Amino acid sequence: MRTRAAVAVEAGKPLEIMDVNLEGPKTGEVLVEIKATGLCHTDDFTLSGADPEGLFPAILGHEGAGVVLEVGEGVTSVAPGDHVIPLYTPECRECEYCLNPKTNLCQAIRSTQGQGLMPDGTSRFSMLDGTPILHYMGCSTFANHTVLPEIAVAKINPDAPFDKVCYIGCGVTTGIGAVINTAKVEIGSRAIVFGLGGIGLNVIQGLRMAGADQIVGVDINDGKSQMARHFGMTDFVNPTDVQGDLVAHLVELTNGGADYTFDATGNVQVMRAALESAHKGWGESIIIGVAPAGAEISTRPFQLVTGRSWRGTAFGGARGRTDVPKIVDWYMEGKIEIDPMITHTMPLEDINKGFDLMHSGESIRSVVVY
Amino acid sequence: MRTRAAVAVEAGKPLEIMDVNLEGPKTGEVLVEIKATGLCHTDDFTLSGADPEGLFPAILGHEGAGVVLEVGEGVTSVAPGDHVIPLYTPECRECEYCLNPKTNLCQAIRSTQGQGLMPDGTSRFSMLDGTPILHYMGCSTFANHTVLPEIAVAKINPDAPFDKVCYIGCGVTTGIGAVINTAKVEIGSRAIVFGLGGIGLNVIQGLRMAGADQIVGVDINDGKSQMARHFGMTDFVNPTDVQGDLVAHLVELTNGGADYTFDATGNVQVMRAALESAHKGWGESIIIGVAPAGAEISTRPFQLVTGRSWRGTAFGGARGRTDVPKIVDWYMEGKIEIDPMITHTMPLEDINKGFDLMHSGESIRSVVVY
Ligand SMILES: NC(=O)c1ccc[n+]([C@@H]2O[C@H](COP(=O)([O-])OP(=O)(O)OC[C@H]3O[C@@H](n4cnc5c(N)ncnc54)[C@H](O)[C@@H]3O)[C@@H](O)[C@H]2O)c1
Ligand SMILES: NC(=O)c1ccc[n+]([C@@H]2O[C@H](COP(=O)([O-])OP(=O)(O)OC[C@H]3O[C@@H](n4cnc5c(N)ncnc54)[C@H](O)[C@@H]3O)[C@@H](O)[C@H]2O)c1
Ligand SMILES: [Zn+2]
Ligand SMILES: [Zn+2]
Ligand SMILES: [Zn+2]
Ligand SMILES: [Zn+2]
Repeated sequence: MRTRAAVAVEAGKPLEIMDVNLEGPKTGEVLVEIKATGLCHTDDFTLSGADPEGLFPAILGHEGAGVVLEVGEGVTSVAPGDHVIPLYTPECRECEYCLNPKTNLCQAIRSTQGQGLMPDGTSRFSMLDGTPILHYMGCSTFANHTVLPEIAVAKINPDAPFDKVCYIGCGVTTGIGAVINTAKVEIGSRAIVFGLGGIGLNVIQGLRMAGADQIVGVDINDGKSQMARHFGMTDFVNPTDVQGDLVAHLVELTNGGADYTFDATGNVQVMRAALESAHKGWGESIIIGVAPAGAEISTRPFQLVTGRSWRGTAFGGARGRTDVPKIVDWYMEGKIEIDPMITHTMPLEDINKGFDLMHSGESIRSVVVY
Repeated sequence: MRTRAAVAVEAGKPLEIMDVNLEGPKTGEVLVEIKATGLCHTDDFTLSGADPEGLFPAILGHEGAGVVLEVGEGVTSVAPGDHVIPLYTPECRECEYCLNPKTNLCQAIRSTQGQGLMPDGTSRFSMLDGTPILHYMGCSTFANHTVLPEIAVAKINPDAPFDKVCYIGCGVTTGIGAVINTAKVEIGSRAIVFGLGGIGLNVIQGLRMAGADQIVGVDINDGKSQMARHFGMTDFVNPTDVQGDLVAHLVELTNGGADYTFDATGNVQVMRAALESAHKGWGESIIIGVAPAGAEISTRPFQLVTGRSWRGTAFGGARGRTDVPKIVDWYMEGKIEIDPMITHTMPLEDINKGFDLMHSGESIRSVVVY
């Protein structure tokens, strides 16, 4: 079949909107009509050429929602008509990782996914002249139709609006999951969130759900504080306004340091400040942000010997097929909020404007609606 | 009263053996006759002048065992005749830290202890000419008699031999505790221990107690492997014999990385290797070693985002008054072994020879017997 897609033809170039060929689903695969997709920093990181593992030409996008149109041989867990969210972290429920309760990093299709291919080692997309186009993070939601491994789709409540719950495919789950799956924040905790963008806001609403007593937000952009307060932030700190040492200021503000701190900036200096503003004895710092290629975090080991711990999270520690449907239900029940974070929607033709809004810091999330 | 002590008169100079004055115990304090004391790297670190927080003149030593001779007003938990181990990490059971099950770092007397003073802000030791001498780590076991806060003594089985269980005052508890209190290693785990000295050997016997399946020991000194095998090491790796990358070698040896890794070297490059040889998704790396002043650990944040965690431990996460008596019992019951690690004993007069043996790497532990 043919479908409409935004193709990343080359690093550093705008996406090109074109018709592409899409082969049907093979064994264990499903064909999904994407109804909406968010634009995430990771797409931009790859498109810019900064990602050393980026491959081209490819169809980017990994934060979508849609409807199953057709299933390949052997597929049993979803059927045509099911509403689904594609999962860049799949959940096979059979590999060594899926069977270990300490991780969500299913490895079943890791190597082919990293090469932009389906599990059989081939691509389903091609240009009209036959040139193959690679998949991206196993999702490629910047195409109106895409093919996904069965283990990489989460079946969700069919009443959920695509243009909102697509955000659960990455940002919402990453932020909320960091709090509830990775940090396992307890009621009454004090927390600091560095970076109040699309991820940080979801960390904040995760902390509110978890019953945190104090939720300090840190951002160099004052404009981010209003929305953050809406989602539950109790104190705002703009590092550029702090006289003297930021860490000392945060430790004082949290009465000795926070029980949990989160980096949602991707800046390695911020990651260090996040660790060092965690409480002596028991503070945990969780890295969510993705750092530039080659950047390193550092600290004095004494910070760890005196009881802080340094951890990280990918996709919020969520097991997609199990956890994503629950988060969709939380949205439908009003337990979490998404709508105010989706600041812009646009048709596929205008997707490059969405990236411009991301760069200028105007948007929290732009969503393409097909 | 007068007692015999090895005094650290100045940084970088040998200890001087002399008679000193010792005032009796004040409210909440106890007078202890030290019967034996181990020589630990931390004493050497301070004596050398490398510790920026080192103060002189002081009576070092923090790994002792002895008998209570006299108690000050208000002391209820120990009485004259009780056998005790001094605790450089006290346990008041009342402070914010003691009441938080996530930490052992009691802060009740932290600031005075750091200044070499008893909780009332004064010292009990002085030279015969009246010059005050500072306490060290709240213990000062390089004196035949010392005064300790009640919250800094653990009452132990009176049948336990002083010249062996003194080692539980630091090294044994630090190593075993890192495994059972900090890492909470599960049966069947794979582990790597970097550094097979006085701490690393105790990590190894902790891992054996915890039922680890694979215990890899890493040391640049082949001579350390025999003793480590005795304590439970299953595989030995000398980094100088490894062709290519040490981390890659260890990851292969442990079938994807270890569930738990421990640094017991104090070298920040080794700490990085320890983190990076932990298993993707769930591996935890615990820093025990104390790094040189100003040294920093580094890694790419991706190591944490893909599920490794970086932690540290002080005094093996043990709460001294509660845990030290149990570890003494384990020794008495034969559950753990100490004797082979005490490679040298000497009278106080020869204490500087003990430090020479430490520097040459000949000893695991030297113990001064009074
Ligand atoms: N670990 C994962 O699974 C995962 C998933 C998705 C995104 N991410 C990463 O999370 C990070 C945040 O993503 P986002 O979409 O929220 O980005 P965003 O641009 O919307 O938000 C980042 C925020 O950080 C603030 N900021 C920048 N530098 C700062 C500094 N020095 N101090 C304080 N605040 C600072 C910015 O003003 C902005 O508000 C990115 O690195 C992204 O790649 C990680
Ligand atoms: N965290 C705590 O509470 C605590 C308590 C006591 C001691 N310590 C620290 O633990 C560390 C170990 O103490 P110890 O008494 O066992 O010392 P040690 O000297 O007896 O043992 C260190 C071992 O590490 C080996 N080693 C050195 N460099 C190495 C390298 N690059 N790779 C592999 N092996 C290497 C040495 O050959 C030696 O066998 C020290 O830093 C000490 O200060 C920490
Ligand atoms: Zn994303
Ligand atoms: Zn799996
Ligand atoms: Zn010690
Ligand atoms: Zn206490």
